[in-house]
This record gives sequence, structure tokens and C-alpha cells, in this order.
Amino acid sequence: MSLLHPDRLFPADPEVRGIARRIFSEICALPILSPHGHTDPRWFADDTPFPDPTALFLLPDHYILRMLYSQGIPMETLRGGANPKKAQEVWRIFAENYYLFRGTPTRLWLDYAFQELFGLQVRLNAETADFYWETISEHLANETFRPRALYERFQLEVIATTDNALDELEAHAAIRNSGWKGRVLPTFRPDAVVDPEFAGFRANLAKLGAMTGEDTTTWKGYLAALVSRRRFFKQEGATATDHGHPTAATTNLSRTEAESLFRRVTRTDEPAPADAELFRAQMLSEMARMSVEDGLVMQLHVGSFRNYNPVLFAKWGRDQGADIPTATNYVQALHPLLARYGNEPDFRLILFTIDESTFSRELAPLAGHYPSVTLGPPWWFLDSPEGMLRFRQHVTETAGFYNTAGFNDDTRAFLSIPGRHDLARRMDAAYLATLVADHRLDEDEALEVARDMTGPLVRRAYKLE
Amino acid sequence: MSLLHPDRLFPADPEVRGIARRIFSEICALPILSPHGHTDPRWFADDTPFPDPTALFLLPDHYILRMLYSQGIPMETLRGGANPKKAQEVWRIFAENYYLFRGTPTRLWLDYAFQELFGLQVRLNAETADFYWETISEHLANETFRPRALYERFQLEVIATTDNALDELEAHAAIRNSGWKGRVLPTFRPDAVVDPEFAGFRANLAKLGAMTGEDTTTWKGYLAALVSRRRFFKQEGATATDHGHPTAATTNLSRTEAESLFRRVTRTDEPAPADAELFRAQMLSEMARMSVEDGLVMQLHVGSFRNYNPVLFAKWGRDQGADIPTATNYVQALHPLLARYGNEPDFRLILFTIDESTFSRELAPLAGHYPSVTLGPPWWFLDSPEGMLRFRQHVTETAGFYNTAGFNDDTRAFLSIPGRHDLARRMDAAYLATLVADHRLDEDEALEVARDMTGPLVRRAYKLE
Amino acid sequence: MSLLHPDRLFPADPEVRGIARRIFSEICALPILSPHGHTDPRWFADDTPFPDPTALFLLPDHYILRMLYSQGIPMETLRGGANPKKAQEVWRIFAENYYLFRGTPTRLWLDYAFQELFGLQVRLNAETADFYWETISEHLANETFRPRALYERFQLEVIATTDNALDELEAHAAIRNSGWKGRVLPTFRPDAVVDPEFAGFRANLAKLGAMTGEDTTTWKGYLAALVSRRRFFKQEGATATDHGHPTAATTNLSRTEAESLFRRVTRTDEPAPADAELFRAQMLSEMARMSVEDGLVMQLHVGSFRNYNPVLFAKWGRDQGADIPTATNYVQALHPLLARYGNEPDFRLILFTIDESTFSRELAPLAGHYPSVTLGPPWWFLDSPEGMLRFRQHVTETAGFYNTAGFNDDTRAFLSIPGRHDLARRMDAAYLATLVADHRLDEDEALEVARDMTGPLVRRAYKLE
Repeated sequence: MSLLHPDRLFPADPEVRGIARRIFSEICALPILSPHGHTDPRWFADDTPFPDPTALFLLPDHYILRMLYSQGIPMETLRGGANPKKAQEVWRIFAENYYLFRGTPTRLWLDYAFQELFGLQVRLNAETADFYWETISEHLANETFRPRALYERFQLEVIATTDNALDELEAHAAIRNSGWKGRVLPTFRPDAVVDPEFAGFRANLAKLGAMTGEDTTTWKGYLAALVSRRRFFKQEGATATDHGHPTAATTNLSRTEAESLFRRVTRTDEPAPADAELFRAQMLSEMARMSVEDGLVMQLHVGSFRNYNPVLFAKWGRDQGADIPTATNYVQALHPLLARYGNEPDFRLILFTIDESTFSRELAPLAGHYPSVTLGPPWWFLDSPEGMLRFRQHVTETAGFYNTAGFNDDTRAFLSIPGRHDLARRMDAAYLATLVADHRLDEDEALEVARDMTGPLVRRAYKLE
Repeated sequence: MSLLHPDRLFPADPEVRGIARRIFSEICALPILSPHGHTDPRWFADDTPFPDPTALFLLPDHYILRMLYSQGIPMETLRGGANPKKAQEVWRIFAENYYLFRGTPTRLWLDYAFQELFGLQVRLNAETADFYWETISEHLANETFRPRALYERFQLEVIATTDNALDELEAHAAIRNSGWKGRVLPTFRPDAVVDPEFAGFRANLAKLGAMTGEDTTTWKGYLAALVSRRRFFKQEGATATDHGHPTAATTNLSRTEAESLFRRVTRTDEPAPADAELFRAQMLSEMARMSVEDGLVMQLHVGSFRNYNPVLFAKWGRDQGADIPTATNYVQALHPLLARYGNEPDFRLILFTIDESTFSRELAPLAGHYPSVTLGPPWWFLDSPEGMLRFRQHVTETAGFYNTAGFNDDTRAFLSIPGRHDLARRMDAAYLATLVADHRLDEDEALEVARDMTGPLVRRAYKLE
Repeated sequence: MSLLHPDRLFPADPEVRGIARRIFSEICALPILSPHGHTDPRWFADDTPFPDPTALFLLPDHYILRMLYSQGIPMETLRGGANPKKAQEVWRIFAENYYLFRGTPTRLWLDYAFQELFGLQVRLNAETADFYWETISEHLANETFRPRALYERFQLEVIATTDNALDELEAHAAIRNSGWKGRVLPTFRPDAVVDPEFAGFRANLAKLGAMTGEDTTTWKGYLAALVSRRRFFKQEGATATDHGHPTAATTNLSRTEAESLFRRVTRTDEPAPADAELFRAQMLSEMARMSVEDGLVMQLHVGSFRNYNPVLFAKWGRDQGADIPTATNYVQALHPLLARYGNEPDFRLILFTIDESTFSRELAPLAGHYPSVTLGPPWWFLDSPEGMLRFRQHVTETAGFYNTAGFNDDTRAFLSIPGRHDLARRMDAAYLATLVADHRLDEDEALEVARDMTGPLVRRAYKLE
């Protein structure tokens, strides 16, 4: 028996499946580019073994926590404590409830890791829970399961982390200084210092001033400090920034207006919501301006209502699987930014969405016109077989393939990375195979597109050459 | 010749079709659970024969009226009078225009009833109109076509009606007292007493007071009266409430604010629209609170612009096929209610939509997180092969199967119930077969999911065990 | 080798493909009805040869300009000058970048024209650029490539142009007086005289007054002038009007309110945006009223943010591929107009959208109820294989086939017309074949529907009989 079928995710029709197989065979062994994600750089700096299966697979994965919580399993049970016995009990609960993930990508990612990394070939359930626990635990104790060894085994060519603008990037320096050849790049994520509603915003600004020697109590000094931090990130290898805002709002305030707004949002811990939103909008335009100047690629991840469940947030904090997408407007919202910077030759803005109604209506037309705009892969709730298929079906006819950025795994679950890229490559092959089968594309063209999406388009989008 | 092909609605690919057949064969004969609908409990109380084909099939079915009206057939013609000769003329017009329903689920539901209940095997059209009329009329005169006999023939395990909060549920009592074994449950639908814009709202409140002995001129007495009515419905067998609001807005007003709002909306027949909306929002939260207390499952059907055609409404009243969906926001709208009650262990909120852009963006993420939230099946305009397929394709990857509630027929067309469940089961089989065919799910798992969706998930969602 | 496969766009499954072939064979040779588009009537009046390949294919096609611009090719390069040598250089750039159109309908339309009109059978790329240039240029010099000869070769039965309300329609008169049998009809497009934000609005009103002898400085005279122009267009053969508004907003102001609003928007070159929007809304209702009176079919193309890129607009003007769709509300917006005119027996309103979230939520329910409402084909960014398929999948189950208007090519690229209709007919065949294959429709019914969509439904929608 086996968890993974060699033809998984390929269309059932024998002719189309044959084409998909041929396309996939051209890209399945190519190195992995991971230009956006949330792995911890200390893993690669310290190269210490990963802990037990529960700590490795379950606790950091808000997809899993979310599903188990939705079925009435309390967070108290799931986060039941760090001792190994408790952890194994939680693993058993997970195993008993593994059937809940039927039809979800989590199931596909996990099965991939179970079989390909740990050699498991029986299904996870109540009966096999302990066998899984033991098998995975044994492997994790092995040298070949250390972070650096896995990086190499996964054939990673590069992996980007996502780092607070205030981070000193010590782990990245340590990696570089260690002599190890892995390429782990930081990404500049300034939410904590550009969003007045971010917890600790004012303290963060003080810290930003201290780190940079700029006077962050003034608008001018604040901007200079951000330029300084961006320069530092770039020196440490960053090629991109990332911005997680509730909306895509941008604006182009006059200097006087911006100074006045800066004063309003920095003199209180509870700025008016409209001021906070306007400030974030202004800061996206400022970030675009800085990107035009320093060349860092700008990523925009917008439209998530974070920490939607206040009861859970109060007790367990962020990233427990309680963020919910909202309807997002890109067209009016991005107009100020694009009107000013959208035609700049070296500017690159990568857009992500969790509102798929914008695929054909907003994102494809924007990417199919503006030289600066590139579409990131389907994000988060859409990072799935059907989500990927709909993304291609909705954007390709307007934006083509060459205004898209290939795949991001966007994960903190390091062990899921090969499975996520495997899934994405299979869906690319499946989609292209349907175009070939109904003669919209010749097979040689489809092979070229598949290769381009796996490597060159990623490198170009993220300036990784 | 035959109206129904045994493989209808199964994917064309021979391998996938074979899997779909095997899955369907496991569920096609299971009893029908109908936990939400609009049949008339007096049918089962009185067990009188159904009238002629026009009165049975056409006049109560706003899907049919709508389509015929859209093609220029006046309501005056369709509702041309009650005498049998006129009724048969209307039937002929319907038959001549039956081709309009090509590609619609109405065609599939009707053909099912025509063939399976009345043995008709030729297509309905101008030539066969009279043959249909006679055949159906003959059958309707037969004992085996009485409501109770059909209930049994349809293998109904339970059927829920939808009843005004002011209803005395006499038909339900009569059914229970009759000794007949059919299970016909009421559902508490309080729109008439919680929506200040409902025709007769103030008179309804007076009646509510009279029925319950509470002082419904005060906020406190009004709430107590609602608690009392819910208790009565529960005693009469109800397991659920149902709420048909224009939006999903909820709010948590202070007692003082709520009292003041209550006074404003009850002292005039034309409350300010904003007050009416706010009152409905507050009442959804109150209903959630009462559900937490009395355990009644809460259903939310929102997003319909009712009686959109004022000319038609003035002349022919409600439910003529002139309700139009509107863009619906669940995330911000439900936040107050869910923030307060969403984590309650026994609370169950079943969400329905006619805005499919919310499937992946809002509904699946909410159901995939909150233990209280369950997704109802695709509703109304989406209760169709393509609608059902898109529902599963858009929600499964985030919410899985086990945060959904199986199928509702939601119909007042009693004779269409077996055809609607047949269609839904076929689409479940078709969707699951595609997952099996591309190896996202093993066949034994798909069979289990199919059985769970047909019975256990419905019973759990509606607390029918 | 060949650019076009005879089975292109048909589903891969052999059984479904066979059905699609049979359906397509019934409609592929039927004459072309082109009731909405943007060809230049002077082509048919003057019958002069088309210029070189760049001027013919590239410069007027904002789909092509858009894609090339999105990949960083400056407009300065693309619009590099009129001399033939420069034009051929631009053609070479286009050829080198032709791979960008993989997966887009532009590729399919162009390949059709290349092979079917110019006999080209090798793929366009850097190597074949000059061969293409020479081959196409040779053909264009030939008599058989004159506009009237092509009209006949394309088997056009009728083609409608889109004309400014102030146009004297001299080309249309010249065609009629020439004795040539081609049927080229004008369409009344009044944006320039009903949109206060249209460049030159006030001057246009003065011109409107001068043309009609009405006093367009008064609301009454202005309306009379529009009635007069509509009458003129109708005399010249028009059967329809067309309205390109940013939103679908309509309103029913009192005469006093309308007069006051008219004064406000006509006394300044920069009316308040809210006034401009309200005036457009009022004018849609006025246009509906006039359509009820004069019988002209009313087309509504709404939801485009025109000239989104101000830098490009300042330098290169309109129609450079920088219009971006926006989320569109039809239900609330059209309510005033439909409430007043929607039930009028001879009124016909054809709705178009570039926001596909409205397909199932708004457009199909409106068309499936109102006798006056018909759905136009998927528009602009959705005029593509996947767009057409989604349109049918989302609207058919509610609106059926008989509330839709068949296909529009909506193009200014005359040579693409046969390819666009070929694509649309193939997608109709493909969609219908899936319904036949899974037994939702019998094949004889599908054939009838296919024929109806190709001819009769277009003629009925546009009153072309």
C-alpha cells in the first residue's frame, strides 16, 4: 500500500493524464525556489534537531489547529503541554481526527511528508497513531533530519524568511558566516513599524530610532529610519519586502498632510481607525517609492481580518487559525500608488489575494497592463488544487503566464515544503495538459511554460538571479 | 424511451463515471432527511388529495413562474383562474414552453417526478401536454398519492416545516395525535416579530403578547415572549429556528441602547431604515443567545432582495419569483454575534448563501474555524448541479466535509423532494468520484464521506438524533 | 503543420468530443450576426485596402498593446511611427513576444486569422516575423482583402457599428446609397451627451442643439434633442442604443429635481462627482423611457474604470489597454429603472458585465425574472474560452438559454471577427456537449439550442428580423 499515487492530481482522462505526466516529468526534479515563507532562520543557523511529531507537525500549523478546533476540540487539549506523554496524547487525537482533512490540501501535504520523508505507507488514524509517532520520532533523531540536511535533501536553491523590520538578522548573519552553502534570505516586513494599530507601535518606533540613529519622532526621521533598515536588509541579502495590511488602500498625501497624520497616529496608543487606515495607505505609497529607489521587490498580502475570534486571541494569541478573509478592492485602492509608481521600469509589485472574485476582475487586468505588477500564486485558503486551478483559469486569459510569479510555499511548516511544491507543479502540469489536450497550446510550448514557471519566472519576479 | 438516464449527472469519463456509480449505489436508497423546507403541515394533518397538475406543479413553484414570466407570459395568464378548464389551458402553455427549462434544475426535478411518480416516459411539450394532464390527474385521484402515502413512499425519515413564530402549530399537533408515524417537525421562523419592516409588525407584537401573556410593549417582555414561543416550538418537536434577513448584520447593544431602539421601532409603522436594520441585527444576536440557552439550532438565510418587482408585488404578492440576490458580507456582519457566542459548545449556526463569491472567501473559513458554524447546502439559485459542484470545489479545501450539513431540499413542492435528493446525491457522488479518480481520496474514504453526508452530518447539524 | 486543430476547444473525453463535433458541425457554417461592435463604417463606405500588418493587427488592438506594455515594452516603441520600415520593426517585436499570448484568446483569434485568411501554417515568432509580414502584406494588396469582399467572405448577415450620438452617419448613408448589399447598421451611443464628465460635454450639448434645432440649455429641450437623434439613428437603420457607464446606477427624479440637476451639471466644466453620477443615473432611466417609446433595444456596458493609468492617458489617450474592471452592483443600481420600465412588453435591456461575481448572483436572477432583461455574452476580459464556459455554467441554471442574446464579437479588429465567432460557437458546442454527455439534455435538444443561440436569439434580442 502507498499514500501517494504517482498520477495524483492529474486529470482522469487518459489522454490528458498522459500529457500531464510528460509535462510533470520535465519539472518534478528541478530545484526548489522558495522566495516567500515563514521558516525560522535559527533552524538553519543552529541546525538543531526538530522536536517530536506534535511540535513539528501540529502546533505550528494553523491549518491543522483550525480544523480540529472547528470540530469542537478545545485549544486547551491541543496545546495541552510540552511533556512528551501529553504531546503523544495530542498526536493520538490528531490521528483519530485525520479523516477531517479529507479533500483538503493539508491532507496531501502531510501524506507527502509522511511517505517521502518518513517512509510511512499506511494511513494515519487511531490505529496507526503510535506507529506514526515512533517512526517519525526515530527519524527526527537522525542527523539526516537536521534542518541543513533537509534543506539539501529538498534541493532548495534559495529560501526567504519573513522578518520584522526591527530584527537584527543575527541568524542570517550566522548562517552566512558558518560557511554552509544554503541560501537563506531575509525579507523586510515592516508591519510593526508602519501600522499604528500594531501592538506596541509606538515602542517599536522608539526602537526603530534607537537602531538607526534617526529621530523617529519626526516624519522625516521616521522615513529615513525605514530607508536605513531597508538598506540593512538588502545588505543582508534581502531582495524583497512584504506588507500584510487589512486592505490595499494607498494614498499620496502632501508632505504637510503626512506630517500632520504622523503626529496624530504617534501621539496616542489608540489612534482613530480612519487615521490608522490612512497612515497605512500612505506608508504603502512610501514603501513603493523606496522600492523604486532601492530596487527591493514589494509584496502585498492584503484582505485578512486578523484575530477574528477575540476569545481565542485573548487566551492563545495570534496565528491560531482564526484569521478570516474579507472582500478586497484592489482597483480603487491601488490607484494612487500605481498612478505614481506603476510605470517605473524597475519597480516590481507582487499582489496576493484571498478574495478570488478579484482574480479575473481586478488582478489579471492590473497585471496584464502595468509593467510593475506581477501576480503572486494563490494564497493561503486558495493554496490548494482547486484554488490553483481556478487561479490559472481566471487569470491566464487576461494576464497570460508571464505576468505571474511561479509558486510560493508561504509556510512555517518546513517539512511540508517539498510536498507543497510537488502539489503546485502537478497542478501546473494538469492545467497545461488541459490546454494542450484541447489544442489551445502545443505541447512543446506547454513544456516551456512549465519550466519557466518553476524557475525563471520566480527568479525574475524576486530578482534572484 | 425514458426521461431519466441511469448515469445522469455523472462525469463522462468512463473511469470517473464508474466510481460515481459505485458511490451513488451506496447512498441512493438511504432514507431522506428533510430538515429545512416549506411544505404545508396541513397536508399531512388532513391527508387530502392534491389537486390538478397546474395547482400541484406550477402555481406554487416560483422557479417555474419566474421563467415563464421572464419570457413574456403574463401572470394574468398563468394565474388564470381556478376552474379545471382554465387550469388545463395554463398547463398547455407550460408544456409548450417546457423547452425554456433546458439546462436548469427545474427540468431535472420535474422529469424525475414525471417518470418516477407518474410513469411518464415521453418528453413534455405541446403534443404531450394533454396526455400528461390526464396521466397525472388519474394518479392524483389514487389513494397512493395522498400526502402520507407519498411521505412513506419517499422514504422520508423526517421533514421539517417552516412556521411563523405566531403559528399555533395545530397541524403539527394533529399529526402527532393522529397516530400516524410520519415525523413532521416545526421550525421557529420569527421574521414577522423581529423585523420592524415586516408587514404588520406592530400588530404581530400585540398578538405575540396576547399569545404568551407577556407585555410585548417593553423590551424585557418582548424578549420573554420570544423565549416562550421558542419553548412552545421546542415542545412541539422543533429542533431549529430559521431567520430570513436582508443582510447578516448582527450587533451587541447594551440593554439601555436596545430598550431605546425597541421603543423607536415599535412606536411607528415606518421606522427609520437604519433603525430597522439595527434592530434586526440586535435580534440575530438575541436569537443566538436564546439558542445557546435552549439548544435550538440557528439557521441564517440572508442576502435576498425580496419583492424586487413592485408592479408584480402590488398585484400578486410575495413569492412570484421576483426575489433577487445581493452581495452579502458575512465576516464583518457576523463578527459581533460570533465574538460573543461563536465558541459556545452547544451552539450551532447554519449559514446559507446565494452569493457564491462568499464560498471560499468567507463561509469556508468561518466554518473551518468556529466550532458553532456549519455550512448549509448551496441555496436557492445555487441548488443545482453546477451550484453544488462549485460549492464543494470552493469550500471543501478549507472547511472539509465535516463542517457541512448535508442536503436540504428547501422546497414547498412536495413532489419534487425525491428528485431533489436524487440530484444532490448524484452530485455528491460525482464530486467525490473526481477526488478518487485523481487520487486525492481513496474510494473507501469517499464511500464513508458520501454516507456521512446523506445521514449522520444532517442529523448532527440539526440535532435530529 | 497547422496552427489550428479541427478539434480545438472541444473537451478531451472522446465521447464528449464526439458530441461537440456533431453540434459544432450544425452551426459552424451559419451566417454571422454581429449586432454589437466597433468596426469603422467608413471601411465599408470607401472599401479601401487595409494598410500593413502592424497597423492592421497591432495598433488598434488594446489587448495586444496591453500585454506587450505589461512586459515592459514602451508605448514609444510600439507606436514608433508610421513609416513602413518602423512598422515592420514593431511587427518583429510583436513576433518575438508572441509567446506572451499563450493561454489567451488573442492567440486563438490571431492564429485563426493567420491561417484561415492568410494561409499561414507556421507559428509566429522571431524567425517567421518577416515571412508573416510579407505574406500578409501581399494578401492585403489583393482585391479580395478589401472590406466589402471580406464582409462577404466572412458570411456576415449584418454588422452593427457603435456611433456617437452626434455622428451624422454619413458613412452609413454612403453604404446604403452605394447599392452594395452589405447590412451595416449604426448604434446610438450617447455617452458624450449624457455624461457630464465626458470630455467636451458642454460643447457637445451645444452641438446637439444645433443639429436638432432644440434648445439644449433646458432640460425639456435637451430631452427632445435626444429623442430627435434617436429617431434619426432609427431611420438610418439602428435597432439599438449602447451605454458605457462607470456604474449601473439609475434613478427616477421628479421633473423639478431633474431640471435642477441639469442646470447644475451644465453650468460648469467640473460638476460635482455626485451630481455627475446622479445625472448619468437619471439619463439611463430617460433612455429606458425613450426605448419604451421608440423600440430601440438598450444595451448597458458598465463597470470599467476607464483610463486607469494617468501617465499613459496623458501621453497616448484612450483605449491603450489601461481600462480596469471594478466590482459592479446591478441589483440595487438597476432597481429604479426596472421598477418603472422592467415589465413593459416591448422594452429590451441587454446587460453586460466584466464582474463575473454577478453572473449567478445578480444577472441570471434578473434575466430569469424580468421579461425585458436579456443577458449579453461575456464581455471584454471574459470573452474567452474559460470566460464563456463560466458564463454558461453560472447563468444557465437560473436564466436558461432563452434569456441570453447569443454572441457579440464587440471588436474593432475586423479581421478577427470570423475567429471570434468560431471560438464562441466551439464553446457553445463544448458546453452543450457536456450537458448531453451527462444526460442533462438530449442531443436533439442541444442541437436546437445551438442553432437558436447562433441565429434566432441574436435576431430576437436585437430586433433584427
